[in-house]
Amino acid sequence: MAAISTGPIPSSTCQRFKLPWPRRSHSLKCSVRASLASTPLKAKNQQLKIGDSEKTVRIGVLGASGYTGAEIVRLLANHPYFAITVMTADGKAGQPFGSVFPHLNTQELPNMVAIKDADFSDVDAVFCCLPHGTTQEIIKGLPEQLKVVDLSADFRLKNIAEYEEWYGQPHKAPKLQEEAVYGLTEIYREEIENARLVANPGCYPTSIQLPLMPLIEAGLIELRNIIIDAKSGVSGAGRGAKEANLYTEIAEGIHSYGITKHRHVPEIEQGLSGVANSKVTVSFTPHLMPMSRGMQSTIYVKMATGVTTDDLYHHLIATYENEEFVKVLEKGVVPHTRHVRGSNYCLLNVFEDRIQGRAIIISVIDNLVKGASGQALQNLNLMMGFPENTGLDYQPLFP
Amino acid sequence: MAAISTGPIPSSTCQRFKLPWPRRSHSLKCSVRASLASTPLKAKNQQLKIGDSEKTVRIGVLGASGYTGAEIVRLLANHPYFAITVMTADGKAGQPFGSVFPHLNTQELPNMVAIKDADFSDVDAVFCCLPHGTTQEIIKGLPEQLKVVDLSADFRLKNIAEYEEWYGQPHKAPKLQEEAVYGLTEIYREEIENARLVANPGCYPTSIQLPLMPLIEAGLIELRNIIIDAKSGVSGAGRGAKEANLYTEIAEGIHSYGITKHRHVPEIEQGLSGVANSKVTVSFTPHLMPMSRGMQSTIYVKMATGVTTDDLYHHLIATYENEEFVKVLEKGVVPHTRHVRGSNYCLLNVFEDRIQGRAIIISVIDNLVKGASGQALQNLNLMMGFPENTGLDYQPLFP
Amino acid sequence: MAAISTGPIPSSTCQRFKLPWPRRSHSLKCSVRASLASTPLKAKNQQLKIGDSEKTVRIGVLGASGYTGAEIVRLLANHPYFAITVMTADGKAGQPFGSVFPHLNTQELPNMVAIKDADFSDVDAVFCCLPHGTTQEIIKGLPEQLKVVDLSADFRLKNIAEYEEWYGQPHKAPKLQEEAVYGLTEIYREEIENARLVANPGCYPTSIQLPLMPLIEAGLIELRNIIIDAKSGVSGAGRGAKEANLYTEIAEGIHSYGITKHRHVPEIEQGLSGVANSKVTVSFTPHLMPMSRGMQSTIYVKMATGVTTDDLYHHLIATYENEEFVKVLEKGVVPHTRHVRGSNYCLLNVFEDRIQGRAIIISVIDNLVKGASGQALQNLNLMMGFPENTGLDYQPLFP
Amino acid sequence: MAAISTGPIPSSTCQRFKLPWPRRSHSLKCSVRASLASTPLKAKNQQLKIGDSEKTVRIGVLGASGYTGAEIVRLLANHPYFAITVMTADGKAGQPFGSVFPHLNTQELPNMVAIKDADFSDVDAVFCCLPHGTTQEIIKGLPEQLKVVDLSADFRLKNIAEYEEWYGQPHKAPKLQEEAVYGLTEIYREEIENARLVANPGCYPTSIQLPLMPLIEAGLIELRNIIIDAKSGVSGAGRGAKEANLYTEIAEGIHSYGITKHRHVPEIEQGLSGVANSKVTVSFTPHLMPMSRGMQSTIYVKMATGVTTDDLYHHLIATYENEEFVKVLEKGVVPHTRHVRGSNYCLLNVFEDRIQGRAIIISVIDNLVKGASGQALQNLNLMMGFPENTGLDYQPLFP
Repeated sequence: MAAISTGPIPSSTCQRFKLPWPRRSHSLKCSVRASLASTPLKAKNQQLKIGDSEKTVRIGVLGASGYTGAEIVRLLANHPYFAITVMTADGKAGQPFGSVFPHLNTQELPNMVAIKDADFSDVDAVFCCLPHGTTQEIIKGLPEQLKVVDLSADFRLKNIAEYEEWYGQPHKAPKLQEEAVYGLTEIYREEIENARLVANPGCYPTSIQLPLMPLIEAGLIELRNIIIDAKSGVSGAGRGAKEANLYTEIAEGIHSYGITKHRHVPEIEQGLSGVANSKVTVSFTPHLMPMSRGMQSTIYVKMATGVTTDDLYHHLIATYENEEFVKVLEKGVVPHTRHVRGSNYCLLNVFEDRIQGRAIIISVIDNLVKGASGQALQNLNLMMGFPENTGLDYQPLFP
Repeated sequence: MAAISTGPIPSSTCQRFKLPWPRRSHSLKCSVRASLASTPLKAKNQQLKIGDSEKTVRIGVLGASGYTGAEIVRLLANHPYFAITVMTADGKAGQPFGSVFPHLNTQELPNMVAIKDADFSDVDAVFCCLPHGTTQEIIKGLPEQLKVVDLSADFRLKNIAEYEEWYGQPHKAPKLQEEAVYGLTEIYREEIENARLVANPGCYPTSIQLPLMPLIEAGLIELRNIIIDAKSGVSGAGRGAKEANLYTEIAEGIHSYGITKHRHVPEIEQGLSGVANSKVTVSFTPHLMPMSRGMQSTIYVKMATGVTTDDLYHHLIATYENEEFVKVLEKGVVPHTRHVRGSNYCLLNVFEDRIQGRAIIISVIDNLVKGASGQALQNLNLMMGFPENTGLDYQPLFP
Repeated sequence: MAAISTGPIPSSTCQRFKLPWPRRSHSLKCSVRASLASTPLKAKNQQLKIGDSEKTVRIGVLGASGYTGAEIVRLLANHPYFAITVMTADGKAGQPFGSVFPHLNTQELPNMVAIKDADFSDVDAVFCCLPHGTTQEIIKGLPEQLKVVDLSADFRLKNIAEYEEWYGQPHKAPKLQEEAVYGLTEIYREEIENARLVANPGCYPTSIQLPLMPLIEAGLIELRNIIIDAKSGVSGAGRGAKEANLYTEIAEGIHSYGITKHRHVPEIEQGLSGVANSKVTVSFTPHLMPMSRGMQSTIYVKMATGVTTDDLYHHLIATYENEEFVKVLEKGVVPHTRHVRGSNYCLLNVFEDRIQGRAIIISVIDNLVKGASGQALQNLNLMMGFPENTGLDYQPLFP
Repeated sequence: MAAISTGPIPSSTCQRFKLPWPRRSHSLKCSVRASLASTPLKAKNQQLKIGDSEKTVRIGVLGASGYTGAEIVRLLANHPYFAITVMTADGKAGQPFGSVFPHLNTQELPNMVAIKDADFSDVDAVFCCLPHGTTQEIIKGLPEQLKVVDLSADFRLKNIAEYEEWYGQPHKAPKLQEEAVYGLTEIYREEIENARLVANPGCYPTSIQLPLMPLIEAGLIELRNIIIDAKSGVSGAGRGAKEANLYTEIAEGIHSYGITKHRHVPEIEQGLSGVANSKVTVSFTPHLMPMSRGMQSTIYVKMATGVTTDDLYHHLIATYENEEFVKVLEKGVVPHTRHVRGSNYCLLNVFEDRIQGRAIIISVIDNLVKGASGQALQNLNLMMGFPENTGLDYQPLFP
């Protein structure tokens, strides 16, 4: 890890940095994350933060040109130990990251390279933000000592036959599949700590399993007829140029999509079936919302005989009382997606239904944070031995 | 009806008209709906339309300063037979309508007056857009020969005990309550034709009963565990100044509200129970969407034994095949709220669920049109003996 | 024009119609615009409208799969004389229009064909909604008797050298260019009446020239330093799938674009120079707004010596007092884009600046209506001898 | 400062804390900012941060129930030295902050009290987020040793006659007015360091003066005919319940407001006149945008004789090259408001106009951060002797 801990990057590397605005040459100290430290003004700007010399973990971001990649970069901006040394994006190889995501142009980052040109000798861990399908082989080809958090769907399904059924192609790295740990942090924390490869959960499955898994495990709700009406912001669809996701096609309207066929279904059912010790089939209908970020799952369940909504509530309270990122709200308080925007929180609550014996569970997250890059960072923190909230202490941005 | 059919309104009335932009005095022909006819340019602008002299039905709009009132005015702008002669708005008495709703400032309309000052001698029918509670007594005080379409909730519930339970006050016009016909047009068309007082349905109940009533009546779905996850645009909350409905509080976020307690519940259950001949209790959870118009009800049902989604589908097709405003889409096509924006359509479809024996029914409307003012006009057309689509042939505005 | 006036289309043509929802076979009367007439219910639905037999003008829509094409279809839905008989869209040939624009799926329309397969023998006039560049040759190849309103930029610039400079290719139909009449309706009404080919103005030029041309012609404002800060909704960018126009890239943010280089600049300067009898160079900076429809031009001008904002105001009043679609608001009333949404209106007003001798002119339109398809219809009405407002009497949709 | 540095707050104080979700009693360690530290999970969650014992500056937030107050709380959540000990909100006295702003309900904060009940003996500095007019007297009544950053307009105008003219009432604290330092950080940094009372600039003036003051001071642009077309998100209008700011009234539309009469005019002209040594009168037209946050000023200027846009550009580069929060983008790169959302950055650029001798300057900020609470914190950091970027290292939230 010499390259980072010994200070400035050699000048040959340095030339790759392209700042999105001009700087006088004398201020262009070339080092990873040098930007903040390199712009003192009358000695007033030396921000109190852990020095760069302590940024001992070298991070690669694969597929950095999508929204989850950008979100990783945003979160790492204030991480005291992780420094990005490699970024790949095949379609934008050679471009500075700040030209692809101008909102992050204050960050000094390596230019993006094609994945085939990436040098992993300077990397300790990677976030893999590539599309499913291609991800398997790329991860198979990475140096074995690398820790990997994969944000694609490729390693989420334990049963590779099921993978093939839902993704239309045989799995190409079944051994890695066996090794992979499912990264629902609050549920599988210990396994994640010891994992080399973590399959980061999908956004819908995160919002759904966090409330349902403890309740099912405790036998508090019936396994049949779990009905999930989920609503997601558009960023979940990624940055690909599609007519259906144009502003004009999305604003001021809503619709269901992927009814009964959304690929998060097997992931949800795998998780619930696991704690139920029995096959669970859910009704899952996602809806696209005219908003960029945010996800709500409204879950309609029948309670087990004799169980009350109070029982559900108190079981969730007990389960998550010491968690920093999963919060069960006060009774009667409705979770809003806008109250988690930009943060790693999941807010939960339980409501009594009009129909006797039924309950309504509401769960909200930011699909790009707890539903993707935030949970990925939470996982890598654990895998590297740091407190899991490191770099994740962003309060929600409202309004 | 002399005032209208004989031409210009007497000058005393005329002075009430205040145009939102200046006109030369010679062009200020004062007559109801004179605006279009009075602006010929080189004889090119005489739009082919039924002359004003045929506008033989004189309309009052009570509570004209809210969104449903404005929507009535918009729809009547091109109505060949209905002319607005009285508008009331207690809080804005004396103001020209165009100063309250500048988008309709091309319409020549009477200034708004306080309801106590309204002269109903020149009125044949009224749309009542007042809040629930006050509406009962106002309608009770109207001349008996007036036809009335009431957009409030005051006459929707047949059982006045239920009214008192949900609205917190005893009903003050129980006799009118008995007389009132529930205005779900496609279902109660014949009763509406002969009604003097129509209780216009709520927006949620419209979107929910249109698909469910025929299916329940035909015994195709189980009465238990009907779960309705509904989503509405913000205009349903009206134009009142509330912190919770500010742009900053609504944009880019969603949340549930009124969980199990929304006042549309008894209306929905009354309708469904009626066709079921048995008490139906539904699970109903509304959600507020970051959009101005549009409403979707996603309805999760268990089918009766042996029934398939095809059966549901074909029954809805058969029920609505000759309807102009209720459309069952092709199999697999998902209704979007944006595809009914500004129009009186209700789009429906049925989908098979992953859970055997269950189906998902989706229904979308524009909450201000089919969910309020459009259906109200559809009803008044029927009550006055005109084709029910008169003045309602607006295609949706997209994007 | 037999095909239309004699009733049902022959069955071979008929098979092209594909309805977006199922109908019983007996109700499938195949005729242009048969949908409304074919769905009577208990004899209540016969809408009072001019019979189809009077729809004597057969319309082609070229490039029907974009937003301006869809808007033409929406506006023609209630046009008493125009019936669409041909629709082309090379990329979507063979598809029913309702599958491309589901909000118009109640309209019975011919399927879209590739332009090379279009049969123009049944067409009297076309709206050409194709991209600039390709448009020239296609219009050159149309039967000469067709009336054409071209919504592209191809025939707007009188000087073909200027066309080449701004569009990067030589003009391929210079003779047609000479013939074309610039379709700013209120200004060039008489020429348009007699035109065969009309170049429909751009959206920005419409919003800017309507207020400025009369003021410049009357010598009321200085020609130098006309500064135009314009703001447009995203629909102006069309329906093409571009990353930059995704919901996530547009919502909740604004930016300038095409600074000094927008292709509407030469069109604006041509119009203003024409009335000025002298070359006018403007400062024009467009901004992209997080909204689908709507355009505002805020125009900062220096008045000629001795001229006051009252003079500007009264001159605009006098110029447009008899116009149906161009409205100068009352003094002090600010035009909002939301108050023209979906309508063909242009709202104007003039404000005194803090800087002595300067004025601020504000102009708003719906970019897809008065800025494109609405004005196109206004023009074709004139060209075909109908009142220019025929089919255009939509009031704005708000909220 | 004992109360903070010695650890837990006494239990009497402690009872004021009301957590928005239930906690087991044993985990309810009552201390300022104890929340994060008090929720370890298997010893994994001890976030590496400066201990609470170092939070030596006790902060009061006056008027905490508005958006700028909430933004102060959000920014202080990660501030290593500032701890909030007093919050006031007359209309919401007694309520926990988390019930007013649920997105910040993870913060342990004192309940809000009426300002008359606030105890300032435990406070070192206050952010004053009260409305103009009332602010003067409240600040006059505060203990003299308190440092104050006032976000209202009350102390911005040096000339109290001008204050009276624009705000319609005589100034009630003229002595404080003299003492107050204008808090445009990058321009008046040294005065701010030594100030006791800082008048935090308005949002528009911040975005306008940052680019214009250096250019005017250097004599690069003409003082006459500076034309500013500014655009703001709705949060600038605050959280008051007003019909005009409802979602339905704002979404999908734009309009100008306060034309020539906006109260930020005298503040802008004071700043520009100061560096010009001559009275500057600007044309300033604000526009309301359908977005919650963000502000752009598009500024049209005439350059001094012989000056080029390159000169402007390089002068801004030189002025701000060492600044962390003011960034001049690369040539040709357009600033977007979405690229500063949630952050304290101001992005600038200069463009050549089509009209010879003129330039277009674009400046974007987040109106709630650099335009209000962010700059306020930047100022208080300076006043208290900390690096000015402390607690402000948030990267923008996009999408």
